[in-house]
Amino acid sequence: MSPPPDDPDIQPGPTGQPPEIAFASGAEWLRGEGEHADVVMSSRARLARNLAGFPFMTRADRAARQAILDLCRAHINACALANRLLWLDLHKAGAPERTLLVERHLISQQHARGRQSTGAGGLDEPRAVAVSIPDERLAVMVNEEDHLRVQVLRSGLALDRAWEECDAADDKLEAGLDYAFAPRFGYLTACPTNVGTGVRFSVMLHLPALKLTGEIDKVKRAAADLSLAVRGFYGEGSDAAGDFYQISNQVTLGKSERIILHELHSEIIPKVVEYERAARRTLLAKRRASLEDQVFRALGLLRHARLMTAEESMQLLSHVRLGVVLGLISGISQTRVNQLMLLTQPAHLQRAAGRPLDQEQRRAVRAQILQQHLAS
Amino acid sequence: MSPPPDDPDIQPGPTGQPPEIAFASGAEWLRGEGEHADVVMSSRARLARNLAGFPFMTRADRAARQAILDLCRAHINACALANRLLWLDLHKAGAPERTLLVERHLISQQHARGRQSTGAGGLDEPRAVAVSIPDERLAVMVNEEDHLRVQVLRSGLALDRAWEECDAADDKLEAGLDYAFAPRFGYLTACPTNVGTGVRFSVMLHLPALKLTGEIDKVKRAAADLSLAVRGFYGEGSDAAGDFYQISNQVTLGKSERIILHELHSEIIPKVVEYERAARRTLLAKRRASLEDQVFRALGLLRHARLMTAEESMQLLSHVRLGVVLGLISGISQTRVNQLMLLTQPAHLQRAAGRPLDQEQRRAVRAQILQQHLAS
Repeated sequence: MSPPPDDPDIQPGPTGQPPEIAFASGAEWLRGEGEHADVVMSSRARLARNLAGFPFMTRADRAARQAILDLCRAHINACALANRLLWLDLHKAGAPERTLLVERHLISQQHARGRQSTGAGGLDEPRAVAVSIPDERLAVMVNEEDHLRVQVLRSGLALDRAWEECDAADDKLEAGLDYAFAPRFGYLTACPTNVGTGVRFSVMLHLPALKLTGEIDKVKRAAADLSLAVRGFYGEGSDAAGDFYQISNQVTLGKSERIILHELHSEIIPKVVEYERAARRTLLAKRRASLEDQVFRALGLLRHARLMTAEESMQLLSHVRLGVVLGLISGISQTRVNQLMLLTQPAHLQRAAGRPLDQEQRRAVRAQILQQHLAS
Repeated sequence: MSPPPDDPDIQPGPTGQPPEIAFASGAEWLRGEGEHADVVMSSRARLARNLAGFPFMTRADRAARQAILDLCRAHINACALANRLLWLDLHKAGAPERTLLVERHLISQQHARGRQSTGAGGLDEPRAVAVSIPDERLAVMVNEEDHLRVQVLRSGLALDRAWEECDAADDKLEAGLDYAFAPRFGYLTACPTNVGTGVRFSVMLHLPALKLTGEIDKVKRAAADLSLAVRGFYGEGSDAAGDFYQISNQVTLGKSERIILHELHSEIIPKVVEYERAARRTLLAKRRASLEDQVFRALGLLRHARLMTAEESMQLLSHVRLGVVLGLISGISQTRVNQLMLLTQPAHLQRAAGRPLDQEQRRAVRAQILQQHLAS
């Protein structure tokens, strides 16, 4: 599975394990930059594509999966998707590496586990992800729910640019791969909800003020009325840990990418952003003392606790992020707070400790990491 | 009411208000020194005495009270009870000053309010306290429940020395004052529970580990079986704020001071101390991580909160005190933590702010004071 040594674009981990260096500098989407970055943590565009002449994943046997993987790998290798691309065979990676990729939003939980639907063991089913490094902006999952899932992640509200990059990557892929496409439906996908454009846009919003004022439920209802999905920090099935809400379109059929993009990027998300900002202004105007108290108590606990669960950590970091964004807390960057949300996840903690950790040990290491990075 | 200017022993506040300077260096009993100071915060010996030829306080009219006050003042002035003595007329003091004295354990809440039982207004009833400064070790209340209440407060377990000093002060007072005494009963007091020796010993214990392990109730039951009273940080009617328990004898009749003293000082209190230490050892051995977590979280909140109630402050300081005593927290002295328990009380906060404060303002100033004194 090693790439030709003369190919500088693909940089494999020798055992399928991400080299430490690859994730050292931190993903671009964590930088806290870009439009509306006080509220919008990141924007994501994602395409679902399948190869013509191969069964969908639910019906693909091991041989078919391996053939798809080989085909995609060869083409991804050849088409210069990014300056540097890291190819990771997930069926050869260990559980910590797979979890690390999930925590970094580079693969789905389902892709980490492998598909169980064929009856064959999921974990060793041929599948992979290609990640642009060091920015981690582009990720192409091979043999997830669809043969190809292309995602671009960017900091702030940047659905337009994320979509441009995703579209450009798709063009490069399509130049050498024969996509399953039906004139009547559009791109064919394993799940009907993705048929058509195969595009999903999503935006990770930080809405602590709407949570504190209790207005968050209005946002959720409004999103549901607009056929938007509201999920948590880790997508489908995850709770809104730390007041982060991922809003994404659900309809992909019968609307062009441009229209979906415009509605979200230029109409809906800016409204939610303004709603959150208004709630923050209200808190500052009417409950400043108790807001400051809450924000600094969170910082105090993060700096001093010796044991910390993931859930508490996420909630406290959310309050600190609010404090940083509002200028109540100085000396701590938004980037640092964003990064800590990943660094305190289980696989990241194990990587930092250099050894497997049980739940109790993770709580202690998590507290240490927080203390180090938030020292006054 | 001003003392003769040639008398160096008595240093009045010109308006009955304690001079700032007088309490600047902190009371000796807060130093966290002496025997068993890891568990015993302070020891107190107190004598109740009444003058012969005057009615008890419940029956004394204003003229009688004034006469008692004048008599006591003249003698206290003359008998050199301490190197420097501050005389404070409470009926001339403002509410903040009276509360300050209560918070410093120099007068009772009842003495601050004045007695209501005569039907006359309590606040302007003639009454006073004489306090040794700057150590605040000796305090003589005049016209409290009894004509004279003499107390000596010391750091650590020092009932024997507190009693010696109290006894010595009593001898000096008795040399010039005619005490009410009946051979059959002993010293006569307003309340029957004080008749006899008129002595009450009390010890302020810090029992956070017994609280955490849930064994504190056993101590309370054992104390009740031994006819000992268990009260809170501010004595009668106060809760056990911050895991502080004041244990005192209730029986004063039929036992000599020596026997009462010996039982408490050499038998009962050392047992409670050992019980608390055993609980601390157990916590360190079996729950060290969560104990450290609790102790440092308390420190983190005290250092970072922007609003803090008196109750929460007391509880958090209690945990920090435990951390300091066990060597888990370094760089903060036990003295500082002890002092903060007083400095965060309402009247102390007002003194620090130099102006009256409502409850919300007190919470903010309290948080500031804690932050200043516990800065890392």
